[in-house]
Amino acid sequence: MHSINQLQAIIHQAIAESRYPQSPKELYEPISYLMELGGKRLRPVSVLMACNLFTDDITKAIKPALAIEVFHNFTLMHDDIMDNAPLRRGKPTVQHKWGNNVAILSGDVMLVEAYKLIMQVNPAILPDVLQIFNDTAVGVCEGQQIDMNFEVLNNVSEADYLNMIRLKTAVLLGAALEIGALIGGASNTDAGLLYEFGINLGLAFQLHDDILDVYGDPEKFGKQVGGDITSNKKTFMLIKAKELASDETKRRLTDWVDRSNAPLEKVAAITEIYDQLNVRQLAEQKMLSYSERALDCLERVNVSPIKKDMLSNFANDLLLREH
Amino acid sequence: MHSINQLQAIIHQAIAESRYPQSPKELYEPISYLMELGGKRLRPVSVLMACNLFTDDITKAIKPALAIEVFHNFTLMHDDIMDNAPLRRGKPTVQHKWGNNVAILSGDVMLVEAYKLIMQVNPAILPDVLQIFNDTAVGVCEGQQIDMNFEVLNNVSEADYLNMIRLKTAVLLGAALEIGALIGGASNTDAGLLYEFGINLGLAFQLHDDILDVYGDPEKFGKQVGGDITSNKKTFMLIKAKELASDETKRRLTDWVDRSNAPLEKVAAITEIYDQLNVRQLAEQKMLSYSERALDCLERVNVSPIKKDMLSNFANDLLLREH
Repeated sequence: MHSINQLQAIIHQAIAESRYPQSPKELYEPISYLMELGGKRLRPVSVLMACNLFTDDITKAIKPALAIEVFHNFTLMHDDIMDNAPLRRGKPTVQHKWGNNVAILSGDVMLVEAYKLIMQVNPAILPDVLQIFNDTAVGVCEGQQIDMNFEVLNNVSEADYLNMIRLKTAVLLGAALEIGALIGGASNTDAGLLYEFGINLGLAFQLHDDILDVYGDPEKFGKQVGGDITSNKKTFMLIKAKELASDETKRRLTDWVDRSNAPLEKVAAITEIYDQLNVRQLAEQKMLSYSERALDCLERVNVSPIKKDMLSNFANDLLLREH
Repeated sequence: MHSINQLQAIIHQAIAESRYPQSPKELYEPISYLMELGGKRLRPVSVLMACNLFTDDITKAIKPALAIEVFHNFTLMHDDIMDNAPLRRGKPTVQHKWGNNVAILSGDVMLVEAYKLIMQVNPAILPDVLQIFNDTAVGVCEGQQIDMNFEVLNNVSEADYLNMIRLKTAVLLGAALEIGALIGGASNTDAGLLYEFGINLGLAFQLHDDILDVYGDPEKFGKQVGGDITSNKKTFMLIKAKELASDETKRRLTDWVDRSNAPLEKVAAITEIYDQLNVRQLAEQKMLSYSERALDCLERVNVSPIKKDMLSNFANDLLLREH
């Protein structure tokens, strides 16, 4: 078996070696630019790890792993237009650097490139892999739309929120693991269990992200702590706080949410309300329950426990990370 | 064999019966809206015609035919954002009606929907069909980018222009015919000939469109005659006029191209220059030469001549149309 570090190195090398046509450069330069901005490469590494559970030969999983990463970066390129985001991983976003039209069309090509890569699997599993990929792609788009709709909704429920992050974040991790497993020769049952492992891990991952955004160590977090609060993002913690607050606290919370002229005070005030209502603990419990469900699915996968250590370590690392 | 009218009716019905999820409605309403705006349905009908050359059972070509039409409408949805177009077939464009973000994301889902439809072919031909579809999708995006680049270039050559319309218009028609043929059980040779038939027909079709834009009967054309001239589109005729004009005429042509304050006079003046230089005839000759090449490819397809009548009639109708 390969270590996570080895798998990451394989992905880094495959991305570095990816070549796109020279022309028209407006289409292809942004793809290389965005792909080379870095990132944790969790999703493509997950494809390789899942494949590696069932076979030592992971070379045939490399192109499909790239497909997942290219797809993920396609969603970033288009989301950044919709969110009017100036920066991505500390660098100018594609639409900021080249304009909206380039970001739209280059993103479109990226989605097709993802399909070119994902279809490089054994023809016997191609229909299954494509169906997973299609369903995932639609789900991620639906998640993004639902997330944008939340911006103008005031009554987002816990269930709405969990459904949104399932679509926007978790399904792609689930698909990465399921596709990797199928490439490795897993049974449909085991591939399905790895999908469920990924869904639950993805949900836990996003809840952890929400917690870090408020309670992360500013020195380690890498982004501005409190970003979700200043941008009024409907996170699990905000939804829970609204649900649990007394009328008076709820009024105070709503007042702060509606204010935009004092961001530092806003972050401090809303964090204090979260503390009073113990919503951090609720988010942690929820996260823990998803992570337990994930590990339970992994346990039921029919391979020797020692092989599964890498995936359970990976899950633990993800949920203990500070950035 | 089915008549073209029957095939068109099959496509119309299949589009009318297409169902998308109810929610999130921002993603799916624009797809139904755009798909139901109408159009000639040339591309999906081409899939069915090509299939019908080789088999009487065209039912298995219906979903892939829809894939081609959904893909085509995806490109329209995104192109209309990039061109900032207010109208499409006389109705508000998606981004005009719902905003840019909806048009981006709904278009993305449409591209995935096209893949969901195109993969519904016999698994034995799935890899080939996907490869054609991927290459075509990339080509169409490249064509759109090259077309946008032309807006700020002054030295577009005839070869550049023909390459652009090949990518932007012709390859999708070629792919529609090739995929239809493969679904019908054609040999790779015959499918390749139908691809070439489509490429050449598509080039002729676009040249005919350029001619109609200047010389069409305003009562029949359906769009404002002279639209390409007022928007300074680098068409075959403008490129040829620049190439053939004397220094004095070229100066006059350039002056008119640079003017935007008198559109009617501009159309009249540039049309007069086209007349003097006979560029209409040059475009017609070029169109004719592509249409002959198309028919030559069709002739070499290994099925009885009578079966090919529908496709040659289709080609002739396309190139004699007045709108």
